[in-house]
Amino acid sequence: MKIENPNPIEWRFSERASQLQSSFIREILKITQRPEIISFAGGLPSPATFPVEHMKAAFDKVLSENGKVALQYGPTDGYPLLREWIANSLSTATCKILPEQVLMTSGSQQALDLLGKVLIDEGSRVLVETPSYLGALQAFSVYRPEFKSVATDEHGLVPSSIEAVAEGARLLYALPNFQNPTGRSLSIERRQELVETCARLGLPLIEDDPYGALSYKGEPFPKMLNMNPDGVIYMGSFSKVLTPGIRLGYVVAPLPLVRRLELAKQAADLHTAQLTQMVVYEVVKDGFLDQHIPTIRALYANQCQAMLDAITEFFPAGVTWTKPEGGMFIWVTLPKHIDAMKLLDQAIAAKVAFVPGAPFYANEAETNTLRLSFVTVPQERIREGVAILGKLIAAQL
Amino acid sequence: MKIENPNPIEWRFSERASQLQSSFIREILKITQRPEIISFAGGLPSPATFPVEHMKAAFDKVLSENGKVALQYGPTDGYPLLREWIANSLSTATCKILPEQVLMTSGSQQALDLLGKVLIDEGSRVLVETPSYLGALQAFSVYRPEFKSVATDEHGLVPSSIEAVAEGARLLYALPNFQNPTGRSLSIERRQELVETCARLGLPLIEDDPYGALSYKGEPFPKMLNMNPDGVIYMGSFSKVLTPGIRLGYVVAPLPLVRRLELAKQAADLHTAQLTQMVVYEVVKDGFLDQHIPTIRALYANQCQAMLDAITEFFPAGVTWTKPEGGMFIWVTLPKHIDAMKLLDQAIAAKVAFVPGAPFYANEAETNTLRLSFVTVPQERIREGVAILGKLIAAQL
Repeated sequence: MKIENPNPIEWRFSERASQLQSSFIREILKITQRPEIISFAGGLPSPATFPVEHMKAAFDKVLSENGKVALQYGPTDGYPLLREWIANSLSTATCKILPEQVLMTSGSQQALDLLGKVLIDEGSRVLVETPSYLGALQAFSVYRPEFKSVATDEHGLVPSSIEAVAEGARLLYALPNFQNPTGRSLSIERRQELVETCARLGLPLIEDDPYGALSYKGEPFPKMLNMNPDGVIYMGSFSKVLTPGIRLGYVVAPLPLVRRLELAKQAADLHTAQLTQMVVYEVVKDGFLDQHIPTIRALYANQCQAMLDAITEFFPAGVTWTKPEGGMFIWVTLPKHIDAMKLLDQAIAAKVAFVPGAPFYANEAETNTLRLSFVTVPQERIREGVAILGKLIAAQL
Repeated sequence: MKIENPNPIEWRFSERASQLQSSFIREILKITQRPEIISFAGGLPSPATFPVEHMKAAFDKVLSENGKVALQYGPTDGYPLLREWIANSLSTATCKILPEQVLMTSGSQQALDLLGKVLIDEGSRVLVETPSYLGALQAFSVYRPEFKSVATDEHGLVPSSIEAVAEGARLLYALPNFQNPTGRSLSIERRQELVETCARLGLPLIEDDPYGALSYKGEPFPKMLNMNPDGVIYMGSFSKVLTPGIRLGYVVAPLPLVRRLELAKQAADLHTAQLTQMVVYEVVKDGFLDQHIPTIRALYANQCQAMLDAITEFFPAGVTWTKPEGGMFIWVTLPKHIDAMKLLDQAIAAKVAFVPGAPFYANEAETNTLRLSFVTVPQERIREGVAILGKLIAAQL
């Protein structure tokens, strides 16, 4: 049946496909998954926090009681009871969020892709933090925007620097809580100023919030969504508070936008697995997260402190780092002349890995920065790995 | 905290977002889900075929034995054992498919989206059948191609008519087995001719195959993939042979293309749920589908025959219809002057629903066509509904 000597296809890809690059992090992870490497490169939550038994019981219950519905095609916007639960959990006394504003997505990465699809034309200006979340830069890049980086300082994004680059911008993307990659959080005053500035400029503000619940002190920051629900697009995820492998996230947006996102989702994958949504609803509906999240916070706070202690002990003078109050990452700034990409080569040779900071910058990169993840590495290995890094850095001073 | 009198956002959507339309079918489904309506409009597989107990046991096993892995982030290309199983199931004596050629997707709708993203620029020519699968038209439309419809006759796509429209085309999209919407299948000779024509023209050929296993006689057609693995892109799905609600499909492509698709998937949703893939592997690995698929075939063959019998009894002269040998759909052609869209209004008033044919045409629509789905309606209701339709059609003659 096979045909004889077919002409080889000369693949002609779309212009946007030429923008596609593998995430540098995922490439590093391939190298650093060898067990002998102490890896601070990962962005994975700790599997020790996955409530496997609760998930198993919920799959069993949903499939036993409602299997035929759970396994059938479902609505594009998502499982109604879960959307309602999310809307309630995001509502405050003065700001009611409607279930109709919630679109369930296949992880919050899909929300980024849908937002790019619906809001970005080729050359559209898109504002991001300096540095910003790599997954967002990747998702938006496909739609070929012109990125403009908004200045940040040690308190995160600087709202007063927005207006200078806002002309014609389609959106501003921010990750205000325990940011990936820096671990920084925006102060309440800055949030207010940011929301007001965007509202004044008529600029849609994306509030990406995968880590907000992981505040070590247990007091989450107020959401920008609740400061201006007509101008803020909120993204949430079950990846960091439950498990990432089920791929379940959501985006909350004003109705005109959420309807467009829903149409884009229908064309992209029809809907997110109904079974997964019903199971997650089963797990969360009676307040499980209220007991579960504090255990994640306690673990991560402990891990973070272990790494901060080691850094303080082993990193030479001239190096600075963030002191996160939540989340999964510490951001390190080396003396200007040290290139973290070159340091990585030496580190891998010494069996330690991290992510250089450069890929997180949409425009000019600060090549003397790097990201350390502390949540999955045993504490004695954290100390060992940080000591090795400290020596490698000191050797370059 | 809420800010005072924010400026309302004037939403500015991307040009491609203006192409987004809700699937006409999904709109009809909203109307026709009322229990009093006899609906031939759905495209859903019959839930009677869902192996709920097998799925439940597999979820339990995977979560018990390997829960922390199943619930963690996974590789973008998919679960290696399932990719290998798929590659083996598609290999023949003369055509070996490699696991590296398989990319797992969130339903095969996502494969359509990724193919559009990677292969279609604005204005790129895209060849489709007349009529074609609506979900594909929707997915590709987002990337704003110029669709050209390739002629079909009662045996499906006519290969000799390709060359006239092939100039500069990026791809030809075909659904050769029990096509949605027509129920038609391409003969083996036509497949061979189609593959040879595309190979001669250097034109990538997409073989979308959700229904291929559902041949009522139990003898699947040979796959075009195996006739020219370097030029054919194959799409498969677990939706029609297992369950659709888990959203699991795959695309098999030559290596240069599949690597691009993988990068596009990484930006779109990182990866498809690891747990789902491990569970499906657990269900299929020991040959379950070999026993299960014949039960689906038998049910659908029976349902199809019931509808064909009713049509023969009740439809007036001047109406023609396809006699599918597999799959889920019958395609009806009314006398030229009858508009199926208007007929639908009358039918819904008489509590019967179907899908008018017009939305399935990329270019000029034949408005006197309609699609009937028979798999989920009890047989006495099939007879009743077809009788009502027959009367409504006869009244217009």
